[in-house]
Amino acid sequence: SAAEAVAQRQDTLTKPQGSLGRLETIAAWLARWQGRDMPKLDKVNIIVFAGNHGVTAQGVSAFPSEVTVQMVANFAHGGAAINQLARAAGAELDVIALDLDRPTADFTQEAAMDEADFLAAVSTGYDAVKPGTDLIGFGEMGIGNTTPAAAIAAALFGGSGRDWAGRGTGVDDAGLSRKAAAIDAGLQRHAEKLSDPLAIAASLGGRELAAILGAVLAARKHGIPVLLDGFVCTAAAAPLARLYRGGLDHTLAAHVSAEAGHRRLLDELSLAPLLDLGMRLGEGSGACLAINIVRSALECHSRMASFAEAGVSDK
Amino acid sequence: SAAEAVAQRQDTLTKPQGSLGRLETIAAWLARWQGRDMPKLDKVNIIVFAGNHGVTAQGVSAFPSEVTVQMVANFAHGGAAINQLARAAGAELDVIALDLDRPTADFTQEAAMDEADFLAAVSTGYDAVKPGTDLIGFGEMGIGNTTPAAAIAAALFGGSGRDWAGRGTGVDDAGLSRKAAAIDAGLQRHAEKLSDPLAIAASLGGRELAAILGAVLAARKHGIPVLLDGFVCTAAAAPLARLYRGGLDHTLAAHVSAEAGHRRLLDELSLAPLLDLGMRLGEGSGACLAINIVRSALECHSRMASFAEAGVSDK
Repeated sequence: SAAEAVAQRQDTLTKPQGSLGRLETIAAWLARWQGRDMPKLDKVNIIVFAGNHGVTAQGVSAFPSEVTVQMVANFAHGGAAINQLARAAGAELDVIALDLDRPTADFTQEAAMDEADFLAAVSTGYDAVKPGTDLIGFGEMGIGNTTPAAAIAAALFGGSGRDWAGRGTGVDDAGLSRKAAAIDAGLQRHAEKLSDPLAIAASLGGRELAAILGAVLAARKHGIPVLLDGFVCTAAAAPLARLYRGGLDHTLAAHVSAEAGHRRLLDELSLAPLLDLGMRLGEGSGACLAINIVRSALECHSRMASFAEAGVSDK
Repeated sequence: SAAEAVAQRQDTLTKPQGSLGRLETIAAWLARWQGRDMPKLDKVNIIVFAGNHGVTAQGVSAFPSEVTVQMVANFAHGGAAINQLARAAGAELDVIALDLDRPTADFTQEAAMDEADFLAAVSTGYDAVKPGTDLIGFGEMGIGNTTPAAAIAAALFGGSGRDWAGRGTGVDDAGLSRKAAAIDAGLQRHAEKLSDPLAIAASLGGRELAAILGAVLAARKHGIPVLLDGFVCTAAAAPLARLYRGGLDHTLAAHVSAEAGHRRLLDELSLAPLLDLGMRLGEGSGACLAINIVRSALECHSRMASFAEAGVSDK
């Protein structure tokens, strides 16, 4: 297989075997999912999906909902963190806003999305992935969206609102309590649907999360390795791991964020993050930083000399 | 101060305050040590120092000593990991070999270097640092050099050979025992000198380690922030932290390596590594990966829009 071809080549390169650590396994991962003995990274893409959330009516965010559309404009003008990070990573940035003027329903009262709405968002995400891309990272923007992310995590892996709620963009203690209560209310409201991972994503999720789910599926279909970003992105993709074993094997966790539930969620998914820098911004920011690591891994794999080529004594 | 100017600007940028985590503190660190409100990264340098070690006579390495000079040739021809990683990080690579045909003395028998030898190596390192560099990373190559590194760590921070010896390039259990025994023999042989950090570096260290010590000092003098690489590089610089409080404040630990003693050594120095990727190659490989993170931190700091510029509602 392509991954075996990579591992064999790695053992000939001028370094002690295994001494590049995760750089070696990253090269094999690229090869496996690209289906190429020698992977490439010519076309690297970051897609940021944006959505608005009815559950903000419960006072779960430190920022008002209009910030979502304002930040999408900021992305368009190149002023956000993700613009700088994508450029530094040599990644093309696409931003896709999903019905920002039509927030999802408040999931404490009813399903966030009905089936048609959910499938439309999944489909938008699926279609956003361009075949021929070599590596893709996903990010999100949506005021309030750590609440649906925590609700999805709780519904998939157990626990209460208090276990999974974090401070998101920076809620105070009272806001954190409202957030945990909203999650608990959502879990109770939709209790009869929580055995179905897709029903969880529709009832408790959001449009940008559904789009990420669709996009992660499309990447699998097209042979594109995926970098997941933070807590929201990971929660968005998590239903796929419940739908079928190995459903996230083509993904790497770019980082573990400072958002309270992220480490536990990664543990539940057996994903080992590449970075731990105390970030909690979303937007795909962690994914961009990880792209540089993946690029370095491929540079070593593709361009180092072998012991024989360099005339270096093997042990 | 420059670091305060950075922190103030960070709080105006279009993100929740603090949400870029260590990227924010990295920008402040650059500013502090460059002495500029707006840091820059136009000239980034990796310097790899190479040396040979008499203690290899004790059977402490999996590779023969001639690999040091062979790998220096590999660096010159562009075939090593560090060549690929430096290019990917946009860093200029310099390689400085220190008397490879004249290994240090076996420190189990006598001082690795006498005063003149030690000062010559420190001086070579000091002079290798070019004023006007914006960021510098140090690396090393030297078959056997995790043994002097572990000996220095033990002498500075206590513990025995068994506590600090790791597998380096890949010694087996018997080699690991020989390594621990060699370190213990060195600690005993030079016991009366171990209250003096520079005497430790001379008696138990190596030329490339002494050069790193000198280069870290020169960077401090010239206002150049430093990325330390792995176990050997960190141990080489560690005597400076014992010589004067804050002696390594201008350094960041690029990564924690897989070499056994590195995490403990970083803890002793209160250095929090940026990366943890299971690497154990040396050469400056971890420092190069960290350069990309530092670049991303500066891109965000220098080019993001403020809330006012972007018309985004603050909370």
